[in-house]
Amino acid sequence: MTAVKINGSTRLYGIVGDPIVQVRSPETYTELFAAAGKNAILIPLHVLPGEFDKTVPALMQLGNIDGLLVTVPYKARMVPYATRLGETAQRIGAVNALRREADGTWTGDMFDGAGFVRGAERKGEVLRGRRVTMYGAGGAGRAIAVELARAGVRSIAIVELHPDRAESLAKILRDAFPACEAAAVAALPAAFDMIVNASTVGMRAGDGLPGDIGTLAADTLVGDVINSEAPTPIIQHALRHGCRYVTGRDMHSGQIDALLAFFAPTKVSSGQPIATS
Amino acid sequence: MTAVKINGSTRLYGIVGDPIVQVRSPETYTELFAAAGKNAILIPLHVLPGEFDKTVPALMQLGNIDGLLVTVPYKARMVPYATRLGETAQRIGAVNALRREADGTWTGDMFDGAGFVRGAERKGEVLRGRRVTMYGAGGAGRAIAVELARAGVRSIAIVELHPDRAESLAKILRDAFPACEAAAVAALPAAFDMIVNASTVGMRAGDGLPGDIGTLAADTLVGDVINSEAPTPIIQHALRHGCRYVTGRDMHSGQIDALLAFFAPTKVSSGQPIATS
Repeated sequence: MTAVKINGSTRLYGIVGDPIVQVRSPETYTELFAAAGKNAILIPLHVLPGEFDKTVPALMQLGNIDGLLVTVPYKARMVPYATRLGETAQRIGAVNALRREADGTWTGDMFDGAGFVRGAERKGEVLRGRRVTMYGAGGAGRAIAVELARAGVRSIAIVELHPDRAESLAKILRDAFPACEAAAVAALPAAFDMIVNASTVGMRAGDGLPGDIGTLAADTLVGDVINSEAPTPIIQHALRHGCRYVTGRDMHSGQIDALLAFFAPTKVSSGQPIATS
Repeated sequence: MTAVKINGSTRLYGIVGDPIVQVRSPETYTELFAAAGKNAILIPLHVLPGEFDKTVPALMQLGNIDGLLVTVPYKARMVPYATRLGETAQRIGAVNALRREADGTWTGDMFDGAGFVRGAERKGEVLRGRRVTMYGAGGAGRAIAVELARAGVRSIAIVELHPDRAESLAKILRDAFPACEAAAVAALPAAFDMIVNASTVGMRAGDGLPGDIGTLAADTLVGDVINSEAPTPIIQHALRHGCRYVTGRDMHSGQIDALLAFFAPTKVSSGQPIATS
């Protein structure tokens, strides 16, 4: 472990979510900053839903904050607080990272989808041609669906508690990736060879599977967004059926390089003009 | 150095000030928390004056913040944000520490004065009977003056850019400690054997002495509130005249035990009720 030191010049990055104790980014990015010789830390920021609209803009006004990560349930709710959005964030209406520019404005973008695809590719998984069923169409689900479509999957069936969300995502996909069949569905279709949990089911102790998932064919690729050390229920389900899988950890480590590059400009602009003895 | 690790369960303490790069508390208290096996860090929070009244209450609403330290220029301005005040804070109208109680309310108190006296006593200095001249009657100055009076100094002459502040402190002292002669003065009196800089002069590079201070008798005790590794201008002045001295570092280390005890109750109440996988 790289030694982490905090002093008055330490620049702050935070991850905003509710709950917050489950997040892994503080360890990961604080270590990476230290290893890169950057005096910066990434801290958990537990923002309660009723306080979000007061707390977030206030945090963004701190003189020593340079960036934010965003986790459930705030990836869509954070969008209006970005001064500008990257292409992916704009398309899906969700951000998971914001950086402060030298002029004090904030740029937001969404890396979960690219992180998931990168994580899968690193494990040697083939995505092209897959018939995907996805549970959940929140910020992470929308981002992953878009990047799966870009990676050439054949179809994406979306199961969501809120059918309008599923329909809205299907429309985004059809507009941007006409070669990919996208549809909102009520339950797991008969034919699929990839299944992704992009809902929060599996985050809390005692959670089960995100839907009525029976036996899996051994060539089914299983994905999850929950960043947990122990196998989540859907990953356990994959293990029981001998399926290959991509975990939330894979998705998070798959976006590390992109996130560090996204945050890098603040390295240059983070100097404080105040001289002290 | 104790290894510091930050994860999703890390509890936050912050020090609020402007500027912030000069503060030493993040290093000191983060190390002490780690050494005590407490998963908590103390981070610098650079709050700009125009944002203070929005940012501070928002920070206090974070679900994982347990305490705040306060430095210049906010020790008085922070008072209304405490739900209740300790005796010292109430008397002088300034706080330098707040802790969140289990019910979400905030208790504030002021430890600079006790820290200064403790720091002086640790170095074997005798305060009783001293004729003190003090520069600055802000939060730290008021706290130190009250504790010096309690420790039995004979008189306190207060030099302040804002004469009403000096007069108000003199009144506080006369009311609470009638045995101590307290007065607002325009400049260094002829007779004194202790001089304390409680202003911010000395904090910025290029600063000189806080007032027109000539030759010092060798038995003059010199005090400073600036927490600097290198000797500040007034401490350099003391060194040149062979005087004993109490630095801002002595004041800060003199309040560590009291502050840790003040923050301790949150150890018990800081648990998060949310179970995660």
